[in-house]
Amino acid sequence: MAATRRPGRNHLFVPGPTNIPDRVQRAMLVPSEDHRSVDFPALTKPLFTDTKMVFGSTDGTIILFPASGTGIWESALTNTLARGDKVLTARYGQFSHLWIDMAQRLGLDVIVQDEEWGTGAHPEKIEEALRADKGHEIKAVMVVHNETATGVTSDIGAVRKAIDAAGHPALLFVDGVSSIGSLPFYMDDWRVDCAIAGSQKGLMLPAGLGVICVSPKALKTAEGSAGRNDRLGHVYFAWADHLKQNPGGYFPYTPSLPLLYGLREALACLKEEGLENVYHRHHVLGEATRQAVAAWGLKTCAKEPKWNSDTVTAILAPEGVDAAAIIKHAYTRYNLALGAGLSQVAGKVFRIGHVGDLNELSLLGAIAGAEMSMLDNGVKVQPGSGVAAASSYLRENPLSKS
Amino acid sequence: MAATRRPGRNHLFVPGPTNIPDRVQRAMLVPSEDHRSVDFPALTKPLFTDTKMVFGSTDGTIILFPASGTGIWESALTNTLARGDKVLTARYGQFSHLWIDMAQRLGLDVIVQDEEWGTGAHPEKIEEALRADKGHEIKAVMVVHNETATGVTSDIGAVRKAIDAAGHPALLFVDGVSSIGSLPFYMDDWRVDCAIAGSQKGLMLPAGLGVICVSPKALKTAEGSAGRNDRLGHVYFAWADHLKQNPGGYFPYTPSLPLLYGLREALACLKEEGLENVYHRHHVLGEATRQAVAAWGLKTCAKEPKWNSDTVTAILAPEGVDAAAIIKHAYTRYNLALGAGLSQVAGKVFRIGHVGDLNELSLLGAIAGAEMSMLDNGVKVQPGSGVAAASSYLRENPLSKS
Amino acid sequence: MAATRRPGRNHLFVPGPTNIPDRVQRAMLVPSEDHRSVDFPALTKPLFTDTKMVFGSTDGTIILFPASGTGIWESALTNTLARGDKVLTARYGQFSHLWIDMAQRLGLDVIVQDEEWGTGAHPEKIEEALRADKGHEIKAVMVVHNETATGVTSDIGAVRKAIDAAGHPALLFVDGVSSIGSLPFYMDDWRVDCAIAGSQKGLMLPAGLGVICVSPKALKTAEGSAGRNDRLGHVYFAWADHLKQNPGGYFPYTPSLPLLYGLREALACLKEEGLENVYHRHHVLGEATRQAVAAWGLKTCAKEPKWNSDTVTAILAPEGVDAAAIIKHAYTRYNLALGAGLSQVAGKVFRIGHVGDLNELSLLGAIAGAEMSMLDNGVKVQPGSGVAAASSYLRENPLSKS
Amino acid sequence: MAATRRPGRNHLFVPGPTNIPDRVQRAMLVPSEDHRSVDFPALTKPLFTDTKMVFGSTDGTIILFPASGTGIWESALTNTLARGDKVLTARYGQFSHLWIDMAQRLGLDVIVQDEEWGTGAHPEKIEEALRADKGHEIKAVMVVHNETATGVTSDIGAVRKAIDAAGHPALLFVDGVSSIGSLPFYMDDWRVDCAIAGSQKGLMLPAGLGVICVSPKALKTAEGSAGRNDRLGHVYFAWADHLKQNPGGYFPYTPSLPLLYGLREALACLKEEGLENVYHRHHVLGEATRQAVAAWGLKTCAKEPKWNSDTVTAILAPEGVDAAAIIKHAYTRYNLALGAGLSQVAGKVFRIGHVGDLNELSLLGAIAGAEMSMLDNGVKVQPGSGVAAASSYLRENPLSKS
Repeated sequence: MAATRRPGRNHLFVPGPTNIPDRVQRAMLVPSEDHRSVDFPALTKPLFTDTKMVFGSTDGTIILFPASGTGIWESALTNTLARGDKVLTARYGQFSHLWIDMAQRLGLDVIVQDEEWGTGAHPEKIEEALRADKGHEIKAVMVVHNETATGVTSDIGAVRKAIDAAGHPALLFVDGVSSIGSLPFYMDDWRVDCAIAGSQKGLMLPAGLGVICVSPKALKTAEGSAGRNDRLGHVYFAWADHLKQNPGGYFPYTPSLPLLYGLREALACLKEEGLENVYHRHHVLGEATRQAVAAWGLKTCAKEPKWNSDTVTAILAPEGVDAAAIIKHAYTRYNLALGAGLSQVAGKVFRIGHVGDLNELSLLGAIAGAEMSMLDNGVKVQPGSGVAAASSYLRENPLSKS
Repeated sequence: MAATRRPGRNHLFVPGPTNIPDRVQRAMLVPSEDHRSVDFPALTKPLFTDTKMVFGSTDGTIILFPASGTGIWESALTNTLARGDKVLTARYGQFSHLWIDMAQRLGLDVIVQDEEWGTGAHPEKIEEALRADKGHEIKAVMVVHNETATGVTSDIGAVRKAIDAAGHPALLFVDGVSSIGSLPFYMDDWRVDCAIAGSQKGLMLPAGLGVICVSPKALKTAEGSAGRNDRLGHVYFAWADHLKQNPGGYFPYTPSLPLLYGLREALACLKEEGLENVYHRHHVLGEATRQAVAAWGLKTCAKEPKWNSDTVTAILAPEGVDAAAIIKHAYTRYNLALGAGLSQVAGKVFRIGHVGDLNELSLLGAIAGAEMSMLDNGVKVQPGSGVAAASSYLRENPLSKS
Repeated sequence: MAATRRPGRNHLFVPGPTNIPDRVQRAMLVPSEDHRSVDFPALTKPLFTDTKMVFGSTDGTIILFPASGTGIWESALTNTLARGDKVLTARYGQFSHLWIDMAQRLGLDVIVQDEEWGTGAHPEKIEEALRADKGHEIKAVMVVHNETATGVTSDIGAVRKAIDAAGHPALLFVDGVSSIGSLPFYMDDWRVDCAIAGSQKGLMLPAGLGVICVSPKALKTAEGSAGRNDRLGHVYFAWADHLKQNPGGYFPYTPSLPLLYGLREALACLKEEGLENVYHRHHVLGEATRQAVAAWGLKTCAKEPKWNSDTVTAILAPEGVDAAAIIKHAYTRYNLALGAGLSQVAGKVFRIGHVGDLNELSLLGAIAGAEMSMLDNGVKVQPGSGVAAASSYLRENPLSKS
Repeated sequence: MAATRRPGRNHLFVPGPTNIPDRVQRAMLVPSEDHRSVDFPALTKPLFTDTKMVFGSTDGTIILFPASGTGIWESALTNTLARGDKVLTARYGQFSHLWIDMAQRLGLDVIVQDEEWGTGAHPEKIEEALRADKGHEIKAVMVVHNETATGVTSDIGAVRKAIDAAGHPALLFVDGVSSIGSLPFYMDDWRVDCAIAGSQKGLMLPAGLGVICVSPKALKTAEGSAGRNDRLGHVYFAWADHLKQNPGGYFPYTPSLPLLYGLREALACLKEEGLENVYHRHHVLGEATRQAVAAWGLKTCAKEPKWNSDTVTAILAPEGVDAAAIIKHAYTRYNLALGAGLSQVAGKVFRIGHVGDLNELSLLGAIAGAEMSMLDNGVKVQPGSGVAAASSYLRENPLSKS
């Protein structure tokens, strides 16, 4: 008789949602409660402060929405911009593409710098465009920090320097959905105006909690635009309603209690591991993955090492091999969830996410599984070579700095 | 030494969020998984069909958003209407007020019929307004089915009749956040065009999943308005992106897995109890609560029996007694969460929610607690009278019809 | 269609197993782990010390068995006594009866003082029997502290005084299964030699963890008897194997991890509330229950107030009324679990357990339910009278002392 | 700052307790309930029948104890034997040793056949000993099916044939703690009289539920010995009390509810996968492990392939290498829990458990981790060789037969 149950755990190596630590699962297991009670602020008020840690911010203001990261993209744009406003951005993957699509559908005038997929935002081109914008018509620069589709990380510090070098007052919006909580992020240093995060990546929670950290400058812009007739600002994602209620510890509408309790615990996890250790660990696991790819004789989507993402590696299947078949077989035969190639790179790449709550042996299991699926699909790689290379690297490089 | 832990359970009698059944809690305890896997549609596809049951619909289309009910208000308005469109509605409590406020902020031209708090929508006035609108400039009628603030239920069937009697083509939007899944709701019969629900009331889930059921007529309106320059439709709450992905079992952005698994189990709970039994139970518990109020010699906010809500009872504190003090004392001394009076009725009423997963003895505990808090606050009621009246009624009226 | 699901929570008012606090539930939700790891003692070692708190002991030694309380009865007897040894005890309910039955089946010579059910151990009779035992053939006195079957608490301090007055060296074994963690228990002061507890009562855990606290004197007796040919001591419940492993933080066989994690959290709960507050709360809830019984015009099984148990009240149904019918109806109609009469009092009493994690309104719900079931079964009580009396008492007597 | 939290999951590869499937975890998350209610037998009665599946029995009787497997050893011996009775058994590892120790401490006359560690029970020697026992003084033959300490499985079918060949009436007791639910076990075919299982291995539950399956012959023996003065039978582990209550769906003392609900779900898991698939999977994972060991150039404790256990592999560290150091380093550096060598083989072997809910990639992660720990400890193995060999085998051998 055919088995109708698959034994063991699913090995989840998509670049989000990520594995939820057991203690975070436990923390979310809460009964309903009155979100207007006198006890409630004891839970919520510290969240508004503590969450800033993962953004590298003390100056910013945290707003929490029952929404996915897509909603937070919208929140950033609609609270600060007006219909027809010019924004500058670069496209180098599916997520930068989708954010551009949103901006256009919201009625913004989007200046798109199309970059080769496998690269990221080019600060020098951004500087050039801003310099050309003598009238300061560009109101904001939008950058996807970590392009999940291609496994590429852009240099936000360099983008900030480019804006400064151009002497341009545009706001800086950064999609940090797949970086914040996993990759170094320094909102205050980089003077990011809207930093956007979702719960289901570095925060190690289920999807459903969108987080934005807003700079004082962006807050002021939002206030200034409040009366304008042509502004985009709608209601659900409006900051003003939250800013009225949050200081007391409340929300303008019913929050998702499990996610708030989960956020508290996830932040405690990150604090206990130490954010610098968390960043280091993601780097080590990312590098171990790249060692495996090199041992297989394959290439990553990222064109140069400087673009390498430490949360996800997009691997190019050899000519003539269908990457989608590798992914499907990994899932059905080995219970391994790999990320698919999207849009331009669909069928050409498979992705190993190495983001969130993860350690060496889990990753090595996934590397072994990817290798087995490749072999089963006719890719000529040396059996065991990926694990050999990755494990040798991991033996030399502990996950924790200290 | 002072106790820093309160023994026993919190008695939650706010009109939402409601108690989560244990089996729904269990169902939500899931590891992360790839929401793009081949297995995922086996979970999601049935949800799009099964959820229609609680809306009383077979013709409608379900769309699920990671959002609270407020977001679904916005989804209804922004997918179908354009800036400056006229909508007709009535205000008789805090939630009808907030929906009006949203509509105005979105740039709609809102015709408000202000009704006495403690009553609801007046079909005859709606008919009159629609008859007067010869040019059919009114694009939609917005009605809050169950006004949680005052414990009042409006007659949606009568509103439908009024629209028909006026021969008016306006869309009918109904906020069923605190009614759907608890009170009889017949979307198809009433020809509701957008019915709005949230997860944290009759669906017995945490907040965070917003549900809309859209009629074919509203869908067509949305498609028609898609190209218009002045439309409100934004991106996160846009139906079109969902309608593209949902038929395959997928979503345009990462859904909240625990809530999807929880929804499946909650629907199973409702089905096993039987929706007619669920509606009957809410009626019996509502009536028992009103029997207690009568025995106390107090009045409800609802002006006449026909306005009585079976999900929440708003009770007027006697002259000179601060209802807020009753609520606060109930919480701090007896671990009982009652609903506060909002806006116009703040300090004047306290509310007992009797919605969601509840039975007789839980309610009697809450009635006892409300009575004790009133007595402690100087309200002259006969000790035990509330429970005596409610329990006598409950002995005669089983929760289940069959 | 008949409902196949019962709405709302079950109201659990048997005298154990008791309600598990949410945070204890969460604490037990743990993955498997190696119970021989270097990390494991960090969990277990504090348990051996902290658990002594609920026994009122610093001198004793805690041993934890994967077993129910029945096993701990056996552990006390078999580690210290030999076949044919004389033990003295009193019988006044089902649990004292069962312990006697065990002692007899183990081959002990049990001297039984049969007391009227509704009373407890009579210290003066114990003293008399011990005085008569000039040769000190009686090796142990066995007392059930709280006889759950009849709702009677015996005075252990007085039993100790009786033993001392007789100048007798017998060991003192106390079954504290339904008292420890709920009623004042002072093992060191009373010089109890084996105090027996189970996880499913005052410790607010599922059944499955048996706890014994052993005095230095009993430990010495156990060692002394180790070589004897006629000793009862077997292997699973042998103390020696545990005493060898426990100091390092390990166990002689695989422990139940969820229960160990749960115990840690339950002890934290008791500490945070404060044991004196816990004892006080049980007294207040017990007295409130008795006020209701009096208001109903009924009698408890306990013959005099001094025998009243603060963890369970056994209520005599009026002549001609089948108590079993009241219990069954309460369960099937109102989802209320009451305790049945056992053995001698089967069909004559129903029991309301008020032990463990409980507060006022939960109890009032149960009192209301018991009243409704009585009324439905033809018992003439005044509707609402039980809740009126109990709630009036509870308004005057806060659960917390401080 | 040093990290105080270890990221990711612990990789549990001790031979028990084993990983608990998520759905079994969920099933155990239950509130307390009255174990004497009219609803309770609906849970329990099917367990007494369904559990027999994993024993390969329809004739046997299941008894469930709140206890670990050690208690069930005692239950088998004490219900059927009397002080001084002769039993025949073989010793070839720590667990067979401990069972012998128990039998001796219980006062039995134990005939021990000491076998080389790394082998198991020798049927021909058992036959010889039984033939020599002309007077049929040997009352039982005790065999540990799977000796966890050395990774050796004995052939129970051959033991049965040996007993039959000798024409001896002795009872056959089999410790199946680390085999039942994982390795083929055919109680009825092998005419096993007491088969002993624990919850924490193939049943994929926490420890705390001991299970015995008793043959009609053993039941009859127990009844026959009930009146004997010299019998060992005590109370907690006595079958008679259970046999009186179980048919109605109840227990003689409070059972552990989470474990009963968990058992129901675990049996459902095994049924859905299919027991033949479960056995096959354990064989494939065991063989994959052995392929890795061979690729490393190391030897297992099992002396010949016929002794190989499919639930645990004990690996001999090379001369001069401390196996304990490999285990400790694997745990502290790679969060991998390996089994230690016990007693005779302490410091000489490390063990990889491959029992319970497990799949290929989890095992490959553990193999990689063991290899890394060996390399870090100076063992000269080829990096990646273990995973290469195991994964090549796994590619050719699917986990499921069908």
